[in-house]
Amino acid sequence: MYDMNHLNRIKAFQAKLRRKQIDAFLVSQPFNRRYLSGYTAKDHGIAESSGALFVPARGDALLLTDFRYQTQAQQETDLRVKLYKRGLLSLLSSLIKQHEVNVFGFESHYTLHSIGLKLINLAEKQKVVLKPCLNMIEQMRIIKDQDELELIRKSVRLNEQVFSSVFKNLKAGMREIDIAAKIENQMRIAGAEAPSFETIVAAGKNGAMPHACPGPDSIDSKDSVTIDMGLILNGYCSDMTRNFTLGKPAVRYRELHRVVRKAQLAGLAKVKAGIPACDVDKAAREVISEAGYGKYFGHSLGHGVGLEVHEEPRVSPKSRQKLKPGMVITIEPGIYLPDWGGIRLENMVVVTEDGAELLNTDTTWLDI
Amino acid sequence: MYDMNHLNRIKAFQAKLRRKQIDAFLVSQPFNRRYLSGYTAKDHGIAESSGALFVPARGDALLLTDFRYQTQAQQETDLRVKLYKRGLLSLLSSLIKQHEVNVFGFESHYTLHSIGLKLINLAEKQKVVLKPCLNMIEQMRIIKDQDELELIRKSVRLNEQVFSSVFKNLKAGMREIDIAAKIENQMRIAGAEAPSFETIVAAGKNGAMPHACPGPDSIDSKDSVTIDMGLILNGYCSDMTRNFTLGKPAVRYRELHRVVRKAQLAGLAKVKAGIPACDVDKAAREVISEAGYGKYFGHSLGHGVGLEVHEEPRVSPKSRQKLKPGMVITIEPGIYLPDWGGIRLENMVVVTEDGAELLNTDTTWLDI
Repeated sequence: MYDMNHLNRIKAFQAKLRRKQIDAFLVSQPFNRRYLSGYTAKDHGIAESSGALFVPARGDALLLTDFRYQTQAQQETDLRVKLYKRGLLSLLSSLIKQHEVNVFGFESHYTLHSIGLKLINLAEKQKVVLKPCLNMIEQMRIIKDQDELELIRKSVRLNEQVFSSVFKNLKAGMREIDIAAKIENQMRIAGAEAPSFETIVAAGKNGAMPHACPGPDSIDSKDSVTIDMGLILNGYCSDMTRNFTLGKPAVRYRELHRVVRKAQLAGLAKVKAGIPACDVDKAAREVISEAGYGKYFGHSLGHGVGLEVHEEPRVSPKSRQKLKPGMVITIEPGIYLPDWGGIRLENMVVVTEDGAELLNTDTTWLDI
Repeated sequence: MYDMNHLNRIKAFQAKLRRKQIDAFLVSQPFNRRYLSGYTAKDHGIAESSGALFVPARGDALLLTDFRYQTQAQQETDLRVKLYKRGLLSLLSSLIKQHEVNVFGFESHYTLHSIGLKLINLAEKQKVVLKPCLNMIEQMRIIKDQDELELIRKSVRLNEQVFSSVFKNLKAGMREIDIAAKIENQMRIAGAEAPSFETIVAAGKNGAMPHACPGPDSIDSKDSVTIDMGLILNGYCSDMTRNFTLGKPAVRYRELHRVVRKAQLAGLAKVKAGIPACDVDKAAREVISEAGYGKYFGHSLGHGVGLEVHEEPRVSPKSRQKLKPGMVITIEPGIYLPDWGGIRLENMVVVTEDGAELLNTDTTWLDI
């Protein structure tokens, strides 16, 4: 729902537009749209938008949408809602005229190439300077305010409750898909809007695929089992991974698990305002490399979490982005052995001035 | 899984490339990728791709992906899998050199503007002509072959089974979200990969929003209740809407319901190879307009269904596309009254030479 936060965010964004000498801006990215307006409609992919914001550098922002979302838009935001009947581009054209726009900005990272061609056409006709921009609102979203942190904490807490309730009933012989279905059903019953991504339940060799889809395979008591799950509560995401066996763990499992956990703790210990994200990745990666598994950890150490389950900052070997207080990131090292399976452990933290606030309280199978 | 269908589709696409004098083409749209390769990985939005196809006009197509999807890619397709370690663009650059590409095509309708800028840069450096294309593979996907039709029939059948099993246990007082959760859980248990879109359960005034999200409202026995649901089975989608009341329907409900059903039957009767899609829309729309509710039916009559739940052809007032045998479309008229609620009825049909094959067998509350 629309509140003072949204109004203040729009004002801050308008100040940014004025600094960049942009007269009006089109917000197409659905999470940026929600961040500024409170309008919660989801898009069915980039080609099926449920609306956009037209934000002039001065004056009132507008929510542009179509017939299907009119009622929802009016209920959820105080912004004036304008319907496009003959397409967004045609409405934009008249808004640009009406607002006497000279420089028009748009989200290059969330606009299709084919739409970009139409915008060029429109700009030529109306003698407007078109300004492709990158991540202007994402850069605002990267620092979470106190209200957002509280919503993220609640999301993490509910996610852990769902995990615990399912975990305690797991038995060898169950199928991956049934466990995933149970988790997602529990999320909904507990009040989550949706899972924040397709729940991963991967046993045995399937766990060697970091993004495995749950399948009809039954879990063996010897299997390494990865559960990677998150939910959306009040718009904010959680994301957590646990790894375990349903029988007595083999020596090799214990050894690999300890390496991954040690890597996670090394990453966590490095988190602090001012540290480049790549240094956090490095701290964890070194532990895995030193144990001889470097080439089996092929993904980044972590990512930001907020309205989107994967957002800025990236915690990767290449990310020079310095951590700042209020950033929320995951720390999730893993080892993936094609003929054996995988182990990944993931927690979420808030970056603080002098370290990190661990958001997870669940300790299931972390220290074995 | 990769089979002769995929190989034949790639060959047909390569012939199309040669006709258009394109030397190589990048397939980024995830459903086009799956259609040609059998690779089932999902993308977490357009900015988080799980791979692309590099299709030369002659010779072998390649599946390009990253570490996280290597095993899955190799398991699911016979195409050669190439990993990009320093990003897709860098790998593309060497493939373009290696294949001596002069004209390079890409999907303008599924490439971000920001990536388009990088492609222009790359093309200039390598003296390649860049050719933005629209819907080249979508135009192939629009006609379903016998194997695809069989998969769609199975998806429709399973969706109806899930609907029936939930419908028979519905009672006044239940909450929208609990019903939606139950439906989606039943889908998973029955073997669906996922819902094909977020299940809509909308009661009373909520039904006035065509794309309502299920909320915590309890259903009253007088409420008009819309359930719009679909699932994905073996990659193929289903989509169906039913409307009913849990108590004795009021006179007004019956009157509106009959108008919508009459409109649906008028649309269905119009479907036939050779007819422009807009004529089908018109046939249904006229019934609603004549009953005086024209302005309360603000969306298109229907859409194509296949690997995507919304795909070509659009069945809208503007769509001049002529229907062809093997197209699969929905017929879903509706009336939405802001202060009362909504009624929508949706079935799926296959277009045939002399009419339409109705895919739905469920008749719950269709003729009241």
